[in-house]
Amino acid sequence: MINEHYKAMLSEKSVIRQIAETASARRAEIGAENVFDFSLGNPNVPCAPAFTDAMVDLYETRDPYELHGYSPSVGLVEFRAAVADSLNRRFGMDYTENHVFPTSGATAAIAHAVRAVTKPGDEVLTFAPYFPEYRPYIEGSGAKLTVVPAAADGAQIDFDAAERMLTDRVAAVLINTPNNPAGVVYTARTMGRLADLMARKAAQYGHDIFLISDEPYREIVFDGADQLFPAKYYDNTLTCYSFSKSLSLPGERIGYVAVNPRATDADLMVPVFAQISRTIGHNCPSSSIQLAVARVVDETSDLSVYERNMNLIYDALVELGFEVERPGGTFYIFPRTPTEDALEFCTQAMEYDLFLVPSDSFGVGGHMRLSYCMETEQLERAIGRLKVFMHERYGRQSA
Amino acid sequence: MINEHYKAMLSEKSVIRQIAETASARRAEIGAENVFDFSLGNPNVPCAPAFTDAMVDLYETRDPYELHGYSPSVGLVEFRAAVADSLNRRFGMDYTENHVFPTSGATAAIAHAVRAVTKPGDEVLTFAPYFPEYRPYIEGSGAKLTVVPAAADGAQIDFDAAERMLTDRVAAVLINTPNNPAGVVYTARTMGRLADLMARKAAQYGHDIFLISDEPYREIVFDGADQLFPAKYYDNTLTCYSFSKSLSLPGERIGYVAVNPRATDADLMVPVFAQISRTIGHNCPSSSIQLAVARVVDETSDLSVYERNMNLIYDALVELGFEVERPGGTFYIFPRTPTEDALEFCTQAMEYDLFLVPSDSFGVGGHMRLSYCMETEQLERAIGRLKVFMHERYGRQSA
Repeated sequence: MINEHYKAMLSEKSVIRQIAETASARRAEIGAENVFDFSLGNPNVPCAPAFTDAMVDLYETRDPYELHGYSPSVGLVEFRAAVADSLNRRFGMDYTENHVFPTSGATAAIAHAVRAVTKPGDEVLTFAPYFPEYRPYIEGSGAKLTVVPAAADGAQIDFDAAERMLTDRVAAVLINTPNNPAGVVYTARTMGRLADLMARKAAQYGHDIFLISDEPYREIVFDGADQLFPAKYYDNTLTCYSFSKSLSLPGERIGYVAVNPRATDADLMVPVFAQISRTIGHNCPSSSIQLAVARVVDETSDLSVYERNMNLIYDALVELGFEVERPGGTFYIFPRTPTEDALEFCTQAMEYDLFLVPSDSFGVGGHMRLSYCMETEQLERAIGRLKVFMHERYGRQSA
Repeated sequence: MINEHYKAMLSEKSVIRQIAETASARRAEIGAENVFDFSLGNPNVPCAPAFTDAMVDLYETRDPYELHGYSPSVGLVEFRAAVADSLNRRFGMDYTENHVFPTSGATAAIAHAVRAVTKPGDEVLTFAPYFPEYRPYIEGSGAKLTVVPAAADGAQIDFDAAERMLTDRVAAVLINTPNNPAGVVYTARTMGRLADLMARKAAQYGHDIFLISDEPYREIVFDGADQLFPAKYYDNTLTCYSFSKSLSLPGERIGYVAVNPRATDADLMVPVFAQISRTIGHNCPSSSIQLAVARVVDETSDLSVYERNMNLIYDALVELGFEVERPGGTFYIFPRTPTEDALEFCTQAMEYDLFLVPSDSFGVGGHMRLSYCMETEQLERAIGRLKVFMHERYGRQSA
């Protein structure tokens, strides 16, 4: 008989995916150019050409036995060393290949990190608004997700609430900067306060509290800003990364966990990840993809479209009278909805073939997430449609 | 703090891997040509050239956005349809793309299959000798592995023991034909008896008992025999497959679960697998590998070396007086050791740089597993060394 727990999950399918599916059906009806789909965070720029070159070269020149052989259970040393060197160069760290574990994207990275530093029943603390898939990732490990409510506008973390909720039961804190869905990028001040709080609580409780830092958007920061590196601020950090956005390879499922060499039991952590893989059926990402990414670890696709699009949509939303924070990175923006009930607003918008995601599944009411990874020309037309909608339904006029 | 359960697993590392690591260290000392490593089942033939051609063509001609985009959570339809068609053609089945779920090799296939049809505490029954990694795969899901002892020589399954051990607590039966480590290929008679037993017990207990059929060696059968297809014999079958051996792509992590369309809830099963993925951080194998394999699903590498090697090593073992069953497939052979204690014999052999795996971790005493996926020339020299060892230590002489 089918396991009832997983069967029940079928009826709580991701809201984002459901909206994306409706948009998809609508595209089949009226043509893709007439559907304005802000739902999915699916990178729309082509992968970095250097990646394609590396892969074709590997296929043409490498012994297939080497290219496609089993990875050791901790992954290929070429990949692990290339990632360690890159992080050391960029962020002044001192990783070795023994601190890097290749994973099938950030999803698998989090799956391993959570299992390594929690036991069933422990709490993992995160901050609203948060990526809703964190819930199945955490709960699937047997741990419990606890969500600190969103801070008042302008503040990045509600530290009073965090202080209260970071109890003795919390084994790990999960952060995501730049953040999905709000595009918030933590400042050094926020990161320093969080690290201090965690260190103080860990000392008070007499046990480690690990920082799990989910960083798939690390390379998408705006205004020429430098993205800070959370592991610099806190020794017990597991950095979870995916090349899905930086190299535009979401389908290839390639990422890693990097263990801060100053973490407790740092040298045991990667072998422990390999044991976790045995129990969840993981066994490393594709060997050829590991080898190709190892060669282009510092490259990115042309990511400039995201900043160009952010400026367009941000300006349009402000003109239309939305309350909205300007994102510091990612390809998301998270305005308040004019109605208290975000779903009501997003449902109205669908009549205009505008597909927006209501904020409730991100742990916050009265907002919506717009993903602007699309061609700029399509975004311009989508903004036109948004103006029509806001004029007809809300009497709003842009300048 | 590191999870104690996974930390404890570090000290129970796979015996096979430990021997392989010792062999590896020895190669560095005295040169690869002087080390006779029968430990790892690592395919040694190059991948099928058609796969390389398909992949290079995809890289050269496909829009990178299509090639590397996110898979739907149930996988790419090209892959699912190609597998369904191939199984239907070869085995007279009636799969559709809705019954096939792409996975990161057979490991992930089993991880999904077990979670889908068991709940924590349920038993999964398998038959000794069995692949030792089944234990972490099953126990990682919360289910319990129960092992039916090996049958007397010649019999494929001890049906008296199976009858007794297939209790009401058993939710699934896990088989592996052709079998690692013994190379046994189930006959139609064995398969029919097992299906009858399972159907009878399921009726008696009033609940489904699923067959999980692990078939990575399906394409490596000897003497021109046809490998039977277990799902033909039993409706509630989940077929777990890997292209690691057929296409010689072990590092690429590509396989599938196929759900018999006549199984209970057959149409729900693939969506349930997608939910399971969310909880274990899986999210489909590499998109480009799915697309390339979809084009070459009926191809294999040149697998003839395995049968040639099997005949050489089987004849040599018989000449040296070993008790041994002739394998029907795979690239393993599983003779009795001359000593009761298999470890004692394998330890002696190491002094001759012969690396053999004692049988205890396969759930059987007094045997050893030899993996003969190596160049035939190297195998011939390994056999020479085995003869020296058996002569000097056991006074055995080959004809």
